[in-house]
Amino acid sequence: MKALVLEEKGRLALREIDLGQILGPDDVRIRIHTVGICGSDVHYYTYGKIGPFVVNEPMVLGHEASGTVAEVGANVRDLKVGDRVCMEPGIPDPNSKAAKLGIYNVDPAVRFWATPPVHGCLVPEVIHPAAYTFKLPDHVSFGEGAMVEPFAIGMQAALRARIKPGDVAAVAGAGPIGMMVALAAHAGGCSRVIVSDFSQPKLDIIGRYDGIETVNLGETSMAEAVQEKTGGWGADIVFECSGAPPAILGVSELVAPGGTVVFVGMPIDPVPVDIVGLQAREARIETVFRYANVYDRAIALIASGKVDLKPLISDTVPFEKSVEAFDRAVEQRPEDVKVQIVLEG
Amino acid sequence: MKALVLEEKGRLALREIDLGQILGPDDVRIRIHTVGICGSDVHYYTYGKIGPFVVNEPMVLGHEASGTVAEVGANVRDLKVGDRVCMEPGIPDPNSKAAKLGIYNVDPAVRFWATPPVHGCLVPEVIHPAAYTFKLPDHVSFGEGAMVEPFAIGMQAALRARIKPGDVAAVAGAGPIGMMVALAAHAGGCSRVIVSDFSQPKLDIIGRYDGIETVNLGETSMAEAVQEKTGGWGADIVFECSGAPPAILGVSELVAPGGTVVFVGMPIDPVPVDIVGLQAREARIETVFRYANVYDRAIALIASGKVDLKPLISDTVPFEKSVEAFDRAVEQRPEDVKVQIVLEG
Amino acid sequence: MKALVLEEKGRLALREIDLGQILGPDDVRIRIHTVGICGSDVHYYTYGKIGPFVVNEPMVLGHEASGTVAEVGANVRDLKVGDRVCMEPGIPDPNSKAAKLGIYNVDPAVRFWATPPVHGCLVPEVIHPAAYTFKLPDHVSFGEGAMVEPFAIGMQAALRARIKPGDVAAVAGAGPIGMMVALAAHAGGCSRVIVSDFSQPKLDIIGRYDGIETVNLGETSMAEAVQEKTGGWGADIVFECSGAPPAILGVSELVAPGGTVVFVGMPIDPVPVDIVGLQAREARIETVFRYANVYDRAIALIASGKVDLKPLISDTVPFEKSVEAFDRAVEQRPEDVKVQIVLEG
Amino acid sequence: MKALVLEEKGRLALREIDLGQILGPDDVRIRIHTVGICGSDVHYYTYGKIGPFVVNEPMVLGHEASGTVAEVGANVRDLKVGDRVCMEPGIPDPNSKAAKLGIYNVDPAVRFWATPPVHGCLVPEVIHPAAYTFKLPDHVSFGEGAMVEPFAIGMQAALRARIKPGDVAAVAGAGPIGMMVALAAHAGGCSRVIVSDFSQPKLDIIGRYDGIETVNLGETSMAEAVQEKTGGWGADIVFECSGAPPAILGVSELVAPGGTVVFVGMPIDPVPVDIVGLQAREARIETVFRYANVYDRAIALIASGKVDLKPLISDTVPFEKSVEAFDRAVEQRPEDVKVQIVLEG
Repeated sequence: MKALVLEEKGRLALREIDLGQILGPDDVRIRIHTVGICGSDVHYYTYGKIGPFVVNEPMVLGHEASGTVAEVGANVRDLKVGDRVCMEPGIPDPNSKAAKLGIYNVDPAVRFWATPPVHGCLVPEVIHPAAYTFKLPDHVSFGEGAMVEPFAIGMQAALRARIKPGDVAAVAGAGPIGMMVALAAHAGGCSRVIVSDFSQPKLDIIGRYDGIETVNLGETSMAEAVQEKTGGWGADIVFECSGAPPAILGVSELVAPGGTVVFVGMPIDPVPVDIVGLQAREARIETVFRYANVYDRAIALIASGKVDLKPLISDTVPFEKSVEAFDRAVEQRPEDVKVQIVLEG
Repeated sequence: MKALVLEEKGRLALREIDLGQILGPDDVRIRIHTVGICGSDVHYYTYGKIGPFVVNEPMVLGHEASGTVAEVGANVRDLKVGDRVCMEPGIPDPNSKAAKLGIYNVDPAVRFWATPPVHGCLVPEVIHPAAYTFKLPDHVSFGEGAMVEPFAIGMQAALRARIKPGDVAAVAGAGPIGMMVALAAHAGGCSRVIVSDFSQPKLDIIGRYDGIETVNLGETSMAEAVQEKTGGWGADIVFECSGAPPAILGVSELVAPGGTVVFVGMPIDPVPVDIVGLQAREARIETVFRYANVYDRAIALIASGKVDLKPLISDTVPFEKSVEAFDRAVEQRPEDVKVQIVLEG
Repeated sequence: MKALVLEEKGRLALREIDLGQILGPDDVRIRIHTVGICGSDVHYYTYGKIGPFVVNEPMVLGHEASGTVAEVGANVRDLKVGDRVCMEPGIPDPNSKAAKLGIYNVDPAVRFWATPPVHGCLVPEVIHPAAYTFKLPDHVSFGEGAMVEPFAIGMQAALRARIKPGDVAAVAGAGPIGMMVALAAHAGGCSRVIVSDFSQPKLDIIGRYDGIETVNLGETSMAEAVQEKTGGWGADIVFECSGAPPAILGVSELVAPGGTVVFVGMPIDPVPVDIVGLQAREARIETVFRYANVYDRAIALIASGKVDLKPLISDTVPFEKSVEAFDRAVEQRPEDVKVQIVLEG
Repeated sequence: MKALVLEEKGRLALREIDLGQILGPDDVRIRIHTVGICGSDVHYYTYGKIGPFVVNEPMVLGHEASGTVAEVGANVRDLKVGDRVCMEPGIPDPNSKAAKLGIYNVDPAVRFWATPPVHGCLVPEVIHPAAYTFKLPDHVSFGEGAMVEPFAIGMQAALRARIKPGDVAAVAGAGPIGMMVALAAHAGGCSRVIVSDFSQPKLDIIGRYDGIETVNLGETSMAEAVQEKTGGWGADIVFECSGAPPAILGVSELVAPGGTVVFVGMPIDPVPVDIVGLQAREARIETVFRYANVYDRAIALIASGKVDLKPLISDTVPFEKSVEAFDRAVEQRPEDVKVQIVLEG
């Protein structure tokens, strides 16, 4: 099979590879249709590593995928050949303590697509556990299906926030993840979502959605904007999606008394936090690591029309142009939210 | 002042009454604009009592109100003359144990409009604590303002349900409260809301909203419908809004494993509950009593356009026709969700 | 192997049986040391069924067990031969939706010892998944180890109650489960636990523990006692462990405003619940079904000395006297909390 | 009345002062019996300020008090002359948004004893709202009553942690607050509490309690100790009570996957936090600001004997020796947990 292989830092190749996958009784074989390019894929391409995860061997990239079931294992009951599906890229040990607690995302044994040494899904076929493969309703496209993975992070943030109906949310950062968080927060019960960034093109994209207001940080500080928009009470929930130290330091000025801060963005090093400021409001802080048990609810929100991810699919390129697509992603054009690679059709 | 007075069971009069109200330093005086007719008002009119609350003296009816601030007490800072407002009808002892805990709705000392012996608000002017008076945004009408009270019950139900983004909700009963609960649940994070009733006209009204599906109980059982619509898993949240014993007995067949049942409807007597069926799913059950701390978030959802209550205002009648309006309400026309009385303008 | 076999309703035999168990790579083989007799074992003996679970084939009884690891499967890392252990008797499908959510106890696919058609553990050796086998600290005896299973139900009730430190709990029913719940609630954060029953011998046993007060229902009503002991506020948490309809009807008179009721007892048929009374206090109701993820914390409480289950082991009999032990259990002597059968040593 | 007045930074006087207090209808007059010296009193004495709170006028010190009701206002029902009581030192605006939500501790309008410009309680008599005055059971001494205030901070930390029965807690810092947190966590449901400090005398005091283990940071790192004591899983809850930057940076190495960190200690400036490390475990972080709604449950735990604060009362001095007592407190002797001043008797 031909796959998009990261040979080493800075060098991609679309070439044959043998992944040696075998269909187990609880697995399905999936013909991949669409794969989105994620910032982490690009990061491995550019730097050859993310924190402790280093690309030492050639690795297939890609973890945001949709496709069609081509074969099912002997025990599989809930999926059949021909089902259109999307897949959770991380597979835990189901008998681990974390998995038994329902927080399989923090099981240290998780194997995650395109995280060394595990191959990703930019390849025509994959074998995947049926339990982590989700059927797409007929009217949800493969493109939307491949958006479920990044949207799942927004869903996880919205779940951990424990939104109360009518809450006002502030979202720091309008990158792809900030946008996903904003949409999940709005669909998940917030009355208003206030998104900040320095990039006006990004704010324009997310600001077109109902219920989402934007703040250009080149013009106004988020603290001022939030205090003004909430009559001085603050945001019930602050989603920190930028990972930027000044934004992290400033969350205590955004959050309401008794409110919640969700740390979604991942700053590389420890960064200063205004603990006393958060204590004065007795804020709760949640952290997010990938997601667990959100795919079905993410698909339900997309299928119901409550969340429309189609405007965030900036472009679609054929598999043969994968390397070019990655080189474009490296440019980080502000108007590119998500570029997807189509393998089939 | 002329008020709508329930003289005794079955006898209403629009007549002069002296309520002897005095503006305290923390109070505001409000010119009433619109008052909705609630089932409880009609119940007092028809039966002269609700449970332990008996109408022994003439009592002004009405508790769903909006109006305009006409005067403010010496300590009032957040409201000014001319502000358009709506009011929480129940006033607790702010120093009670329940109030200090934030659950002032269950403070036994609560004084609630039009609950004997406390007069209601179908009267041109009321004195009310500023802390229980809420400013309406400019684009929210007085009619919508008077809908905040019944919607607040839906909000309380949605809050206590602790909706997770993307949850599927089932709502038993499409009366005014069932409709409010359905809208609050959808705006509050559910992906789908399935409402059941025997009345097709009621289902038609609520079924016109996006994200709300209906089940006519004359044609299909709710258990079958919910199991079919959820692939056999059940509803994440079941809102019981009918108060009908068969619906209450049946909630265990609707709710998903680990799901939640919210008892909103109030059956007069104890009714059989399938405890073992609920245990087998380890369901959580929440109960709802009026509301606390929801007015601001209810108004935020209405103001943001996420919840549109205008289609539920079935008719508007002038104050002089109040008695006729109550006689019409007694008929319980299925197409009448909410009839409002306008005092001013 | 010789096992205690329920041949059919009313007929037990200690006889040879071949269970045909095979050690899988994630399993351990355990030499059984001690097995407690549970009410459900006795119920199968007496009635041949519990609800939908009917004994149609001979079935080994017993599910409260401790023992010693005799062999480990190829993948097992956390246990080794010679480890003293106790076992969770219910094994879910780890890839089911419920299991992935962390609520594996409500997975319909659970296979539970001594629940038809699954054999129990009153047999010298069992094969069990390592993930559901828990090491006992050196100073925790086999007898205590076999008490972990019934105590786990108390733990599950205490967990679902979400006890706040210093809460006052009321426990209706001083049977073995009521006692376990009382101890878990006290160790789990309650300041006081008030236990009611009609049986003074049972109350004497549980009343000997610090922090546990008793109410003899032949002398005082629980409602009066709880109101008096809490200055009229009510119990923060009410654990209903009797399954008796009058107790279930009466929980609304025990629970504080904003308090919690936990339905632990299992009444056979639907029973009347005072929904309006619970709504007036806006009570939350939790239900309990077995347990999930509590064995490690149950063992931690026992090992730390915070919970002492030894006084509840009423008697110990050798395996050869199993049938006599069951016949004694049928008598339901009030002073017998737990009789255990010892297979080894 | 003679009071202990902080005239200005570094200068205390026991001298006459007229506080001009008037008994309102909801107030009680209390004869003060015992007042504990708190670190914040000492901080004002030494530095003349804490953060934004600056001593610009002479101010009576003291906020940890017990006493006897001497007179009751016209509306007071739950207290009578002669009742032995302790008092919450912070009084919110009961109609503020925060107070209505039940989080009156974060109401910006709170007036708190001995926080400029509000006088404290080191004075023979105070006027206090009955709603913030709590009756002491007969067998709880005035000394214990004056310990309720610092213990309330431990209670607040334990409440916000949402302890699950059997949790293992780690407490960083064995100062008076760390000790209070450790005792509240143990009584509040933890099976084991592991306390770290550099001071062996402090560890000796808290280590004498059942269920509390100690780690001398001069000998072992807390990360190593916790990982070793929990089999590599980590502490379910980490209470950071030191305020020390290295401890704050290190919490991610202590906390279990899905666990909780509670920031109790107040570092003056923003300090680096290992956000990615906390995300990898998807930890929840709670912050604590004083307390709300915990006095009754704190008293219940003390009265029940589950929490014994008497060993933490290091010494008792008469009112006339107040200045000497403060000078001793400035020394911060490691064996002095709490020194109390007795005004009466």
